Amino acid sequence: MAITVVGSVAFDSIETPAGRRERCLGGAATYFSLSASFFTDVRVIAVVGEDFGQEQQAAFNARGIDTRGIEHASGKSFFWEGSYLENLNEAKTHNTELNVFGSFQPKIPDAYRDSEFLFLANIDPVLQRRVREAMPDVKLVAGDTMNYWIKDHKPALLEVLRGLDILLINDTETKMLAGNSNLVQAARAVLNLGPRMLVVKHGEYGATAFFGHDGVAAKTFRAPALPLEEVVDPTGAGDSFAGGFFGYLASQKELTPGAFRRAMFYGSVMGSFAVEEFGTSRLEKLTREEIDVRFNQFRELTHLD
Amino acid sequence: MAITVVGSVAFDSIETPAGRRERCLGGAATYFSLSASFFTDVRVIAVVGEDFGQEQQAAFNARGIDTRGIEHASGKSFFWEGSYLENLNEAKTHNTELNVFGSFQPKIPDAYRDSEFLFLANIDPVLQRRVREAMPDVKLVAGDTMNYWIKDHKPALLEVLRGLDILLINDTETKMLAGNSNLVQAARAVLNLGPRMLVVKHGEYGATAFFGHDGVAAKTFRAPALPLEEVVDPTGAGDSFAGGFFGYLASQKELTPGAFRRAMFYGSVMGSFAVEEFGTSRLEKLTREEIDVRFNQFRELTHLD
Repeated sequence: MAITVVGSVAFDSIETPAGRRERCLGGAATYFSLSASFFTDVRVIAVVGEDFGQEQQAAFNARGIDTRGIEHASGKSFFWEGSYLENLNEAKTHNTELNVFGSFQPKIPDAYRDSEFLFLANIDPVLQRRVREAMPDVKLVAGDTMNYWIKDHKPALLEVLRGLDILLINDTETKMLAGNSNLVQAARAVLNLGPRMLVVKHGEYGATAFFGHDGVAAKTFRAPALPLEEVVDPTGAGDSFAGGFFGYLASQKELTPGAFRRAMFYGSVMGSFAVEEFGTSRLEKLTREEIDVRFNQFRELTHLD
Repeated sequence: MAITVVGSVAFDSIETPAGRRERCLGGAATYFSLSASFFTDVRVIAVVGEDFGQEQQAAFNARGIDTRGIEHASGKSFFWEGSYLENLNEAKTHNTELNVFGSFQPKIPDAYRDSEFLFLANIDPVLQRRVREAMPDVKLVAGDTMNYWIKDHKPALLEVLRGLDILLINDTETKMLAGNSNLVQAARAVLNLGPRMLVVKHGEYGATAFFGHDGVAAKTFRAPALPLEEVVDPTGAGDSFAGGFFGYLASQKELTPGAFRRAMFYGSVMGSFAVEEFGTSRLEKLTREEIDVRFNQFRELTHLD
């Protein structure tokens, strides 16, 4: 089943202990859709500027991603500059230029309206809510957010959470959103805000899925991350996780507890590839065979037999 | 097969968000042996003072632990006072009184000499090495250490590492010992220092086992920790992990890769119990049935099927 994703398509300048790259193709919707495209049809809603050219478009085309919902505006695309020199787990932002993204008004192409899955990547919760309301018939809605929206835009965010089936955030965001420093208690509090499932991403330690009482009848599940020899660029790891997770779910006929577990593994697998090279490079050259090999590595890493 | 463990038997005064307890029975060798006693015979080498009385002795007796190697000296037992008020993952030490432990000279009872497993709990590496050399015929030797010995007693520690089969330490200690901030690279460097297996404990995220080239033919394995609603007292979690891990190994006829995986799970299981109450309380009243139930919970938490 097709996924529609709304979020940023951007350029990133990134510095890590492995080096520096200027103006890589980036943005949450980009990483998400490249990652999800290995599992299902993906349709993107975003806005870009005149600096978004054939090279960037080709990255989406090569993965068969529907970009009719990417609006081309006059001006420059969203730009982010950051580094991970001291801590690979946390980006230090040096510069953010919203550019055309500052006045983004998501428009949903008619061809997207039969999408059964909707992913609200990390953008202003007011926009997330608008897209959610414009697509009332989707079967499953997942979303992401970040500390900035939790801290300064909580009322708008809480309205989004009420309309979400699945929320994917990290440890710090979970505890901040709940105002509770115990992860299990915080997870339960977040599940009371609306989502039926909460995926908490632990960075190099993997991710845990918590389920609410009215959610799928599934038990708490923890997927590992692959212990990696070298992390070249952590940018987009969380969005790639979300793409693998939600893309796999959208490819399933039935959303059984087992499907959610395998989806957690595929999320972790896609995150582990994303960080191996700068920007979207690794995802752009990835093959489905590599994904399956790594899935089995994850199984070997965690299974007793 | 029997395990001999050398380490501290102590009194701890502990403050956590859940409350405060004065002079609980504590010490690495205490937690280790209580935990390991659910799987195999355990023999302790330690020194205590006149404040170690019938109540403390009873805790060991109830679990059938051989305490003939606990020397009774005049003076007071090792005493530690610490708190976890700001961070449950890291103790803040308020007071350490070595007391009789300051002049500890481990003596190995003849009845311990046929032990096939030896555990060197976190004490001065000079003492660890002395015990190791006095028991040359053991089949498997594991040990623990801490940042203090890594930082200020590295030459002595490196000699201990050369005689170890298995080292159990945490993330920070692994990176500090290797002088490398990437866990996988650090683990490989530590494996080059002697141990054939390295168990890195990640606190609330579980633990990872790394194997050297000349170690058991086993692949990297990650055991989870149980997401816990409440951590009452983290003291002794690592020693309880070591006890469950090494105790289970000692109970096995053959040290297969599968046995090491299950041992990682049992370690994590025992750590999860230890933190549920202050001091050794939870371990003292634990049953083997509870251990097996939780083992299955860990399997459900991580296994796809």
